[in-house]
Amino acid sequence: MKIFGIDPGSERTGYGCVEHSGSRHHLVLCGSLAAPATATFPERLKHIHAGLAALLAECQPDCVAVETIFHARNVRSALKLGHARGVALLAAAEAGLPVVEYAPTEIKRAVVGYGRAEKPQVQQMIKLLLGMDHTPSPHDVADALAVAICHLHASTGAVAETIRYHRAPRGTARSWREFRPS
Amino acid sequence: MKIFGIDPGSERTGYGCVEHSGSRHHLVLCGSLAAPATATFPERLKHIHAGLAALLAECQPDCVAVETIFHARNVRSALKLGHARGVALLAAAEAGLPVVEYAPTEIKRAVVGYGRAEKPQVQQMIKLLLGMDHTPSPHDVADALAVAICHLHASTGAVAETIRYHRAPRGTARSWREFRPS
Repeated sequence: MKIFGIDPGSERTGYGCVEHSGSRHHLVLCGSLAAPATATFPERLKHIHAGLAALLAECQPDCVAVETIFHARNVRSALKLGHARGVALLAAAEAGLPVVEYAPTEIKRAVVGYGRAEKPQVQQMIKLLLGMDHTPSPHDVADALAVAICHLHASTGAVAETIRYHRAPRGTARSWREFRPS
Repeated sequence: MKIFGIDPGSERTGYGCVEHSGSRHHLVLCGSLAAPATATFPERLKHIHAGLAALLAECQPDCVAVETIFHARNVRSALKLGHARGVALLAAAEAGLPVVEYAPTEIKRAVVGYGRAEKPQVQQMIKLLLGMDHTPSPHDVADALAVAICHLHASTGAVAETIRYHRAPRGTARSWREFRPS
């Protein structure tokens, strides 16, 4: 099972593809798309869309996962985010892929075991879960991998158990660091 | 000069193409795109994008015009609107067309002569300006034609003069109805 996670943004769109085989998650690829600073807003959208379309064709995932957005700082940032998210969902629909959505708290709970985890915690946990050499950065990349892993957990159940086992007891917010994938 | 106006919406996207030749505006085509009610949100976006891409290829306009959005009822409706607007701008960028934006008040002032005109006034004025048999409806169609005409006015200057001449005096909000194109 292969999931392609997207964290859309008009400035930078993070993406990450994760495969589950056996009892492990494997990183297929990850990165971020950013249009040149001189590009107009429609050109930026074209850049995001074309980039994601090419990546989806390359990865051939079973599904695309994105974060559900209900909140934004304000109407203006919601509009900008909506534009980028629109072309991302379009790329998925054009590739004939189903799109699944998860709330930010669900994603953090699935990955870190705590729904209000901070971004560095998510980044660190993604690194551990996928056995990466370096922390996925910028955070858009980690967020894209996180939503993909969240859907793998929801679909396979296996790793969710592991996470639950290793979840930090209440009041020891830092003990998530102790978790090491077997 | 041929302008393609778009009024994007996730439920229904209005479009209208207007050509300026000689001293007159001519309606090339107009209508609205609505995905089947059973379609998922990404499928809706695909429907809007594919529809607009086909129409732009058919019309071969010089430019795409859309309303600038700064406000929305709330963050949630701004997000939904942003998605639809994103795929509309993408279709324009993919067709290699420049995109111009006008504020709602600018559009109303250009078409009706009054920046706070109501939707029925805009619809009626579009009908008169383009010599249409029927009032463009639903209002998304009229709004798409309005932004196209607004850009024609801004580019050619000619009709803006006519409008100014026929503008309703202050306090007589309904006298816009008296205007008839020569």
